[in-house]
Amino acid sequence: MIPTKLIPRTAEAHEPPLLIKNLLAQSLRYEPQREIVYRDLFRINYIQFNQRVRQLANVLAELDVKPGDTVAVLDWDSHRYLECFLGVTSVGAILHTVNVRLPPAQVQYTINHAKDKVILIHEDFLPILTAIKGELTTVEKYVVLSDKVYTGTARINTLDEIPNGFSGEYEALLSKASDQYEFPDFDENTWATTFYTTGTTGSPKGVYFSHRQLFMHTMGLLTYIIGYEAMPFKGSTDVYMPITPMFHVHAWGFPFLATMMSAKQVYPGRYEPELLLKLLITEGVTLSHCVPTILNMLVSNPAAQKFRQNLSRWKVLIGGSALTKGLAKAATELGITVMSGYGMSETAPILAVGYLNEQEKTLSPEEQIELRTRAGRIAPFVEMRLMDDNGQFVPHDGHSLGEIVARGPWLTQGYYEDSERGAELWKGGWLHTGDVASITPDNWVIIADRTKDVIKTGGEWVSSLDMEDVLSQVEGVAESAVIGLPDDRWGERPHALIILKPGYSLTAEGIKAYLQAKIERGELHKWYVPDRIIFVSDIPKTSVGKIDKKKIRSEMKELILGSSTTIS
Amino acid sequence: MIPTKLIPRTAEAHEPPLLIKNLLAQSLRYEPQREIVYRDLFRINYIQFNQRVRQLANVLAELDVKPGDTVAVLDWDSHRYLECFLGVTSVGAILHTVNVRLPPAQVQYTINHAKDKVILIHEDFLPILTAIKGELTTVEKYVVLSDKVYTGTARINTLDEIPNGFSGEYEALLSKASDQYEFPDFDENTWATTFYTTGTTGSPKGVYFSHRQLFMHTMGLLTYIIGYEAMPFKGSTDVYMPITPMFHVHAWGFPFLATMMSAKQVYPGRYEPELLLKLLITEGVTLSHCVPTILNMLVSNPAAQKFRQNLSRWKVLIGGSALTKGLAKAATELGITVMSGYGMSETAPILAVGYLNEQEKTLSPEEQIELRTRAGRIAPFVEMRLMDDNGQFVPHDGHSLGEIVARGPWLTQGYYEDSERGAELWKGGWLHTGDVASITPDNWVIIADRTKDVIKTGGEWVSSLDMEDVLSQVEGVAESAVIGLPDDRWGERPHALIILKPGYSLTAEGIKAYLQAKIERGELHKWYVPDRIIFVSDIPKTSVGKIDKKKIRSEMKELILGSSTTIS
Repeated sequence: MIPTKLIPRTAEAHEPPLLIKNLLAQSLRYEPQREIVYRDLFRINYIQFNQRVRQLANVLAELDVKPGDTVAVLDWDSHRYLECFLGVTSVGAILHTVNVRLPPAQVQYTINHAKDKVILIHEDFLPILTAIKGELTTVEKYVVLSDKVYTGTARINTLDEIPNGFSGEYEALLSKASDQYEFPDFDENTWATTFYTTGTTGSPKGVYFSHRQLFMHTMGLLTYIIGYEAMPFKGSTDVYMPITPMFHVHAWGFPFLATMMSAKQVYPGRYEPELLLKLLITEGVTLSHCVPTILNMLVSNPAAQKFRQNLSRWKVLIGGSALTKGLAKAATELGITVMSGYGMSETAPILAVGYLNEQEKTLSPEEQIELRTRAGRIAPFVEMRLMDDNGQFVPHDGHSLGEIVARGPWLTQGYYEDSERGAELWKGGWLHTGDVASITPDNWVIIADRTKDVIKTGGEWVSSLDMEDVLSQVEGVAESAVIGLPDDRWGERPHALIILKPGYSLTAEGIKAYLQAKIERGELHKWYVPDRIIFVSDIPKTSVGKIDKKKIRSEMKELILGSSTTIS
Repeated sequence: MIPTKLIPRTAEAHEPPLLIKNLLAQSLRYEPQREIVYRDLFRINYIQFNQRVRQLANVLAELDVKPGDTVAVLDWDSHRYLECFLGVTSVGAILHTVNVRLPPAQVQYTINHAKDKVILIHEDFLPILTAIKGELTTVEKYVVLSDKVYTGTARINTLDEIPNGFSGEYEALLSKASDQYEFPDFDENTWATTFYTTGTTGSPKGVYFSHRQLFMHTMGLLTYIIGYEAMPFKGSTDVYMPITPMFHVHAWGFPFLATMMSAKQVYPGRYEPELLLKLLITEGVTLSHCVPTILNMLVSNPAAQKFRQNLSRWKVLIGGSALTKGLAKAATELGITVMSGYGMSETAPILAVGYLNEQEKTLSPEEQIELRTRAGRIAPFVEMRLMDDNGQFVPHDGHSLGEIVARGPWLTQGYYEDSERGAELWKGGWLHTGDVASITPDNWVIIADRTKDVIKTGGEWVSSLDMEDVLSQVEGVAESAVIGLPDDRWGERPHALIILKPGYSLTAEGIKAYLQAKIERGELHKWYVPDRIIFVSDIPKTSVGKIDKKKIRSEMKELILGSSTTIS
């Protein structure tokens, strides 16, 4: 930061902080009649939504929530969650979006670690609460969220099932609260949201975001998604439905954008394929985001073909894991517009989203698939670099590999009460993503590997994923895993595990000959060829089904010495 | 500002300030091949533009411009001016956009007052400089901007006409400078731009804006113009050409928006009707902004009818003074989309822009005219209120009048070295516009008068402009002026001057009877009826042709006692 001349300020002059309430305010200004829909149960317009957010603010005050207190939410994707996105934050409290998919012991850890004072919990998740309630150290009050109040199976004011020790049911509390509330001004660096990310080791890490960061994340999305039409989104004609949980990195920030644009929003509650498809069609949904698994589930639903006409208006941003060309093709054939995005919990999350420039838009749908399955193009206001082991920047030439490091207006500034891992994250003043990639001169990001899996051999970085991709093309190979092992001369060298398809018989020499031919055609660098190729009947996986390379590395010796394998 | 919990920050964590260089960076990221055009003389793409901005930064360094120094520009609307918008500010210096229409003595005053160190001046304005150069107290260096270098009438490196004492010609200096320059980070509250606003009394007042303010003004425009499509603008298909001088409130901020969207931009230099029309057509201009006079000049150009097809793609935002229904209709009949905006030098400038909501879009073109000629709808992130004389807020009911006061992320925080008038501007923590208006419940702003001209009678505010509009409808009235004069009982009472059309003979009684009939039909409040109606042969005007109400008020006694008048 160089010294400059700052603007002088008259004593009474006012310049507003960048707060989430300013996003909310837009939703009333121009098109307040547009709707927010919850499943097939409930619908309100933005006037009612704003009243409800203010009612929520008054309920929070009654529950003794003060600025700086943390309020946890355990809910499916709902209008209530959206009200918490805007309302909990705008009273100056912190919204903890609890990952309901974690094991109860980890849910308990995150609630205690975040020092949650009030919990709002959907009745579906009460069993989790029952399991951990005795161990919660900071929670003072509970509110239950129920869908029954919308179906007439319970009267709002006499919900029978409110558990003991609960302050009440959400709708009942709202209905008794005033819809007048003046959201205060406060420092834009006020803590707005927090949630936990789990790695393969250690306790969950708490990331956190300020009002200014979420405001700017919304401006980034606005610039890219609406301005540049990276995923063309028009508040006036598009209908938004998230299919990424709202507890997962703010549902990628889209709820804030859709609200400030007063776009019609559809919240699907618990994800059920039939209902998702029904909402897509009856509510005219045109924009969503989800992980590949969900897209695959919808695309392979037998009903999908029947609704081609509706699906052909649907645009889906894919993230979480890589969009395969096969799935992208299947979706495209149904008329669905797909695009990949890239980010993580630490980055609020958007770092990159695919964008086809004027020239690329003229490519055939088939040619576009390769671009649409890339991680994306660097998003507006995000600075991204590739860094090697020595902290040096690697050129953006489309093939040199380096760890993605980033700067931008919406990155977590550390991990909550974990200064050590926070310092690692921000080593050298850049946020380290742990992902290895190349970047093209025109800003396409192509993910190659995780830093801990990339193989560093003789000064070159070998992507284990790329090598697995090459091996998968060998006739007879069912599955493969490539890892690096220490090597005196080269630092590390690649080693491969291979599972054969039934009825095939291959040798390490045969595979190496196949690779040698690729090297001679210039399709492969010679340092990619594994030192050892080992045939196995099983490859270790993590609980979420990813290849457990850590385990493979640590057990490699055993595997090598094991029984049912052939060693080259 | 209430106290809250701020996000903790890891020592090395980075969060970027909001700087103009971040807007510039976007122009290279996605569509850098799009063009910036200057008249029929010069065109570059955004890659070249970015190189030139960096060359300019190096030229500024050679001219010893340091962060906090002020650089003045006197130029027509040009690519060079745009380069200064981005480049002068991004090195941490302050850009003074000099109003070249001021009398030389005032130009001199503003240059000395702003303490300009370097002046970049178009050769057309050298006569102004010649007149004042001896009186400039702070300027150390001069650079001449010449169009001849683009036409081959002068070679870039040997421009014959560089005056004595000049450091060189802009293109020649650029061509010798490196196009490598790393724009530094600095405080986002760094002073970026300054310019002067002249009122009817006192010396010109210097307003000023920070990087953060101009960044946020761009986000506001983005939200409204691109997001909500208030004046539908798509970077991918729209071509932007300003027809409001760039020295005048940043050409309404559009150059920053167009640059960050890497939209094609056309800079017309000196405004010449034939060239403007030619550029409109040959460059495919679709979006402009201008004062009504310019629109009228183009609409009434005989060539306009011939180019209906081109004009039908043209969208024009009108500001500066009120867009009349007649002009709006004439433009609409040519297929031009017109909309009004409202703002001032103190507000960077956007406070309001017309926006037709879903319901209003269904109105017929004729019905839309009334909306399109209103001052606009309150812009995103702007807070606007109506205030009465006691500092109380007046309801937004569409008829109650009050002074427009505003808050927002891009308002000047005072006047430079003029704390007294700065304190007046910000009295009570709201920026006082000096405009009297009503606001409808759905955020339309309808300007009624200037605060100093509104007539305050018995607790009611009477718009002098509204009353003049009523009088203008009386058969035989050529022109009228309504002012308030002190009244013991009511505080003030309206008085009217009227010029008759040739051949007409009216009496004050006749006019009052006409007004009485309107009162009985509920079309007029009784307190609007002037106490005195005075027939005159001439109404005092200011130098820019507006009715000089200040003069009328002060001379009213003389007028009443004067000779060629009839007194009611």
